[in-house]
Amino acid sequence: MKLDHIETPAALIDVARMQKNIARMQGQMNTLGVAFRPHVKTTKCIDVVRAQIAAGARGITVSTLKEAEAFFAAGVADILYAVSMVPAKLPRALALRRQGCDLKLVVDNPGAASAIAAFGDQHGETFEVWIEVDTDGHRSGITPEQDTLLVVGLILHDNGVKVGGVMTHAGSSYELDTPEALAALAEQERAGCVRAAERLREAGIACPAVSVGSTPTALAAAQLDGVTEVRAGVYVLFDLVMHNVGVCALDDIALSVLATVIGHQADKGWAILDAGWMALSRDRGTSKQAHDFGYGQPCLLNGTPLAGYVVSGANQEHGILSSTSASTEAEATAGSADDITQRFPLGMKLRILPNHACATGAQFPEYHAVAPDGASVEWRRFHGW
Amino acid sequence: MKLDHIETPAALIDVARMQKNIARMQGQMNTLGVAFRPHVKTTKCIDVVRAQIAAGARGITVSTLKEAEAFFAAGVADILYAVSMVPAKLPRALALRRQGCDLKLVVDNPGAASAIAAFGDQHGETFEVWIEVDTDGHRSGITPEQDTLLVVGLILHDNGVKVGGVMTHAGSSYELDTPEALAALAEQERAGCVRAAERLREAGIACPAVSVGSTPTALAAAQLDGVTEVRAGVYVLFDLVMHNVGVCALDDIALSVLATVIGHQADKGWAILDAGWMALSRDRGTSKQAHDFGYGQPCLLNGTPLAGYVVSGANQEHGILSSTSASTEAEATAGSADDITQRFPLGMKLRILPNHACATGAQFPEYHAVAPDGASVEWRRFHGW
Repeated sequence: MKLDHIETPAALIDVARMQKNIARMQGQMNTLGVAFRPHVKTTKCIDVVRAQIAAGARGITVSTLKEAEAFFAAGVADILYAVSMVPAKLPRALALRRQGCDLKLVVDNPGAASAIAAFGDQHGETFEVWIEVDTDGHRSGITPEQDTLLVVGLILHDNGVKVGGVMTHAGSSYELDTPEALAALAEQERAGCVRAAERLREAGIACPAVSVGSTPTALAAAQLDGVTEVRAGVYVLFDLVMHNVGVCALDDIALSVLATVIGHQADKGWAILDAGWMALSRDRGTSKQAHDFGYGQPCLLNGTPLAGYVVSGANQEHGILSSTSASTEAEATAGSADDITQRFPLGMKLRILPNHACATGAQFPEYHAVAPDGASVEWRRFHGW
Repeated sequence: MKLDHIETPAALIDVARMQKNIARMQGQMNTLGVAFRPHVKTTKCIDVVRAQIAAGARGITVSTLKEAEAFFAAGVADILYAVSMVPAKLPRALALRRQGCDLKLVVDNPGAASAIAAFGDQHGETFEVWIEVDTDGHRSGITPEQDTLLVVGLILHDNGVKVGGVMTHAGSSYELDTPEALAALAEQERAGCVRAAERLREAGIACPAVSVGSTPTALAAAQLDGVTEVRAGVYVLFDLVMHNVGVCALDDIALSVLATVIGHQADKGWAILDAGWMALSRDRGTSKQAHDFGYGQPCLLNGTPLAGYVVSGANQEHGILSSTSASTEAEATAGSADDITQRFPLGMKLRILPNHACATGAQFPEYHAVAPDGASVEWRRFHGW
C-alpha cells in the first residue's frame, strides 16, 4: 500500500533508515569486539527483530515475560529478561525454560536470589541468573563495591543457580548531550560492570557474561575491555530525544506518525491534526532538553522536516500544529493566519517525528513498514504483559 | 480470580466505584432534564459501556471510527463520532451507515462540509452532521458568532445533508479547580452552544440536538436550558487530575494499576515497582496542578491511599516509589532507608491511582473488573484506529 492510502493516524517505519541504524550499531559492536543483544522492548515486533538478528545480533533482551513468550514462539531462544525477578513470576519463567527457552533472569537483591534458588530446587530446574549492577545511580542494581553483590552471588552459586553474568544499564545517558560526557559515562558503565564481574570471580563465581548498554553509551564507547556484550533498544528507530542527546540526525529517525490535517483555528495559527496523544503518546522527553520539540516534529510525506513548525499541543485524538516563531497568540494572528491554512490545507498528510520511539510505537497495534519506493506492508506489534 | 493472583502490572476497575460514578452522572443528567451520551474513548470496553447504557445513557460518543465499528458490532447504533471528519475517512463512515449504524459526523469547516455533501450525493447517502462549536478557545470548533457557522450550516443543509445538531466540548475545564470557575465555564459552554443552535435555526436549519460536555462542566452545571444532551467520558473511572479539578474524591477513583515491589534502593529511599510508564502511561497531568501526584498515588490492596508516598519516577517497566517528605537524597538516607524496605517488602502488591484514566487504560489490553468481595473478571478493551 502506498503512503497516500494508509488511514491516519498510523505508525510508519522507514525501512531504509531502520536498516542503516541496525548496520551502524552492529558495525560499532563488531569494531569493539563484543556481541550485541538488542532490547526488543522498543518495537515488540518480530519483523524488526529478524532484521536485527540477520545483521548479527546474538540473542535479545526483553522487558516483560510476554515479550519473552512471543519472541520464543517466533524462534528466538536466547533471551535476557532484564527486569528484576519476583517470586510470583517464576512459574511463567519456568514454563519458558521447560519449553527450551534459554531464558536468563535478573536480580539485584538477596530476597529474589533466595526465592529463585528455592523455586529452582523445588522444581528441579537450574535457572540462569544475571546480577544487575548499578553504575550510574539511575535505577535498580547493586553498586560494584557493595557487599550485597557477593551476598547475592553466593546465595545463587551455593544453591545451584547458574550465575551467568552481570548486567548494567546507564540510563542516565539520556540526560547528557555532549560526546565527551557520553564517552565518560560509557567508560564508567564499562568499568563498573567489569569490576563487579571481577569481584564475583574473585569469590569463586564464574560470571562469564559482562553486559552493558544504553543506546547513547553503546554508540559513544571508545573501548569495551572486559565486556562481552552490549544491549541497546531505541537505536533501531531513534527519536527526537536521541537527536537531542546527539547520537542521531533528524534524518536517521525511522519512526514517524502519519497524520491528516482535519481543521484549523486560523486566528490562533493552528492546524488541527488527527494525531493527538493517543497516537503520539504523552511522552514529552524533549521538554527537559535543549531543544523542546513539543509533541513532535512535523515533516512532509517525503520525510523533509518542516523547520519552524511543531506539534505544540495534544488532546486524545487532536494534535495542534503551530509555528514555533509565533510565541503569542497576537503574533500568530498578525503573521500566520493565512499561512497556516494555505501551507497545511484540509486533508494534507504529514509525518510527525516522535519524542520517544518506545512510547509512541506502543500506542499502535501495527507499524506500516515503508520501502524506499513508498510501498508499505504491515508489521504487527503486541502490547500488554 | 482474587487480586493476589493477578499478574502485575494489571489495570483494575473497582466495579462498585464505577457504578457509583455512573449513577452520580446519570442522576445529575436526570435532574437537569437532559439526555446523556457517554464518551467511550475513556475505556474502549463494551462491559463498561453496557453499564452506562443500563443506567440510562442514550447513545455513545466515540473518538475514532474503530470505536464506532466495535461498539456498533456490539449492538450500540446511536453513535456520535466527535472528531472533525476528513474526506479520506468517509468510506468507512458510509460502510457503517449502510450496515444500519446511526452514525453522526462532526465538522467545523466549509471544506469538510462540502466534501461530505459531495460524497453523500455521489453515493446516495444522507449523512447526518453535527457542527462543532468552540465555546472556550480550547481546541476545534467555530465560535457561535462567526459567519463560518452559517456558511457550514448552509453548505450542509442546501446540499441534502441533515444538520443534526451542534456540539461543543469545554476542555479548558481541566485547567480549573474551584466550583465557581467550573460553574461559570459550564454556563459559558451552555450559552455558547445554545446561541449557535439559535443562529442556525434563524437561518432555517432545524438543528435539533444541542450537545455539550466535559466531565467537570457536566457535574458543575446548575441548569442546562436549551441543551438536549451532555457528553462526558472520564467520570466513569475518574483519576488524579479530576481529583485536583475538584470533581471527585480519591476514593471515587475506580481505576488503579496493580503493581509489585521488585526491589529497593534503600539509601535513596526508593522501592522499585514493576509498573513503569508503559503501565502508568507518560501522562503527568497533575504536574501542572496544585497537587503533583508524580506518576501516581500508591494505595494498599484494599484501596487505602498511602499518604506521604508517591510514584516519583518511571522507566519503561520500572516505577520508583518514594516518600514525598524526603525531598533530598540526604533526608531519604537519614530518615527512610529502613522504612522503605520494611514498609514495602519485596513482592508486596500495591494499587497505583493514575493521573489520567484515558491514558493509563490505553496501555492495557484488558481491565480486571474487581467486585466488592475481591473476585475479578477480565474485561477486554481495544486499541488502534
